[in-house]
Amino acid sequence: MAVYTEVSDAALSRFLGAYDIGGLLSYKGIAEGVENTNFFLHTTAGSYILTLYEKRVNEADLPFFLNLMGHLARRGLACPQPVRNRDGTALGRLCGRPAVIVSFLEGVSVKAPGAHHCRELGRALAELHAAGADFGMVRANNLSVSAWRPLFAQAEAQADEVSPGLSGRTRGDLALLEAGWPADLPGGVIHADLFTDNVFFIGDGLSGLIDFYFACTDAFAYDLAICLNAWCFTADGAFRRDMGEALIAGYEAVRLLEPAEVAALPILCRGAALRFMLTRLVDWLNVPPGALVQPKDPREYDRRLTFHRQAADARAYGFAR
Amino acid sequence: MAVYTEVSDAALSRFLGAYDIGGLLSYKGIAEGVENTNFFLHTTAGSYILTLYEKRVNEADLPFFLNLMGHLARRGLACPQPVRNRDGTALGRLCGRPAVIVSFLEGVSVKAPGAHHCRELGRALAELHAAGADFGMVRANNLSVSAWRPLFAQAEAQADEVSPGLSGRTRGDLALLEAGWPADLPGGVIHADLFTDNVFFIGDGLSGLIDFYFACTDAFAYDLAICLNAWCFTADGAFRRDMGEALIAGYEAVRLLEPAEVAALPILCRGAALRFMLTRLVDWLNVPPGALVQPKDPREYDRRLTFHRQAADARAYGFAR
Repeated sequence: MAVYTEVSDAALSRFLGAYDIGGLLSYKGIAEGVENTNFFLHTTAGSYILTLYEKRVNEADLPFFLNLMGHLARRGLACPQPVRNRDGTALGRLCGRPAVIVSFLEGVSVKAPGAHHCRELGRALAELHAAGADFGMVRANNLSVSAWRPLFAQAEAQADEVSPGLSGRTRGDLALLEAGWPADLPGGVIHADLFTDNVFFIGDGLSGLIDFYFACTDAFAYDLAICLNAWCFTADGAFRRDMGEALIAGYEAVRLLEPAEVAALPILCRGAALRFMLTRLVDWLNVPPGALVQPKDPREYDRRLTFHRQAADARAYGFAR
Repeated sequence: MAVYTEVSDAALSRFLGAYDIGGLLSYKGIAEGVENTNFFLHTTAGSYILTLYEKRVNEADLPFFLNLMGHLARRGLACPQPVRNRDGTALGRLCGRPAVIVSFLEGVSVKAPGAHHCRELGRALAELHAAGADFGMVRANNLSVSAWRPLFAQAEAQADEVSPGLSGRTRGDLALLEAGWPADLPGGVIHADLFTDNVFFIGDGLSGLIDFYFACTDAFAYDLAICLNAWCFTADGAFRRDMGEALIAGYEAVRLLEPAEVAALPILCRGAALRFMLTRLVDWLNVPPGALVQPKDPREYDRRLTFHRQAADARAYGFAR
């Protein structure tokens, strides 16, 4: 939650000179987003977010993310739309960093969601999958099953210091997931990081989705599994079956899951939990001195894995057809 | 530059329930302000800043600051206006902290001002002094001459490590300033912290003044001396006479300085420089571990003091009548 790069009024004014978005009225650094620097930008033409991409984003991936946001917005999905400059390109440079202006999306992230929010989320997730169907670019999911063993190798020696027995549990999960990870599920564009931070509500209604910087091409049901992990557990790790039911029902109100997806849901949920446990574990063990960002606790996902290991089938997650 | 207090959507919604400012559309923590936590707030009624006062603000001073902003705004000065809740009070509590909503002020802080900006600033400063004339409250300047020796006592032992000879130079300045500090100059409400961060411009025009949390009752010309220090020196410490001239001329376009103020200008400038050198020095030597805020360099004001010590009279600062 930090502004990593200071942008002077003079540098910003030069940058804005390439865009047709009116005169600058105000801009404020936003204490939000772990990976990038974001500014709220107000001009005579409207409100925008200016993002400077810091080192953790691979610049080669930016065209995929930006084209995807533009595509989804044109398909009617409520998401930030990149603004093109007068040369017709959305990707610029500011203060030595790749930089983009996107439309500002109103809405508030819900810290403690309920079943109603999950139903709205499920619907929006299925709409995102549908809106991405005719998107022409592909980006492999570089944080899927083949990435987990190398990630674990970076943390294995210290894993048991974080949680006793974590190392052995993770080795067991890895063996099972690598052997049984499903192939050939229906897929396409997935968000892959739809945590509560990235979903906006106004009142009771979902107003939009943000932060497409983990989006990739993968199984739709894996995206649902990520949301089940991110939204449907209480702070102390208990699964909220009513929220799972609402999430799945909301999704299926737009797109019915196929039998293979239903059958795969437990292993996808277990894999999604392992993916977030592992990236959090690596970050947890590698906090740079003077870090501005508090790392997230990997043990939250260790606790979710306990639930996933005993889930017999999709009914355990609230699948009710 | 940090958000010290996280505010959940639920806590904010409860807080906003006491105000008539419409429904919440969005809010973002702003990476701005060293002392407090600020959120940009957008509702169906407009744009606001929500401030949570952290420990460095004395809660007993808040009525002075808030009533002053309300008074100045009613007198036509462009500054944030506190919003009263339905009970008629501007000061509320949120997440255990005193909290206030003020109107949002458009504008951009100029990092590298020129003479034109200084002229605009001078005019706004004199307008602020005039607008405060009939304000009924008084707040002593607790960072004036009598505070400097106790501040120095906190830093004296380590001062020479920051800049060789700083300790001896400061003792000399203190003796001279305590002996010669002017009394009975024309005074009233002063801003006392009008650095570039706190002055907004849209295009070439000054659009407003913010951050009244050092405002107090003191000599008007001391406020001008603070601005001469904050605005009219280059990054390497050289006085920009054209900018000093513009600042003083802008001020005098609204209110002529009296002969006693003109005579006192050099000692007031020297005192203002010492005040900022000392508070910066104390902060510099007391950075808490894990601090989110980079302390400002006291040596910038040590260099300004070199200039002030040789200034013979107000003409050295660009006074040209």
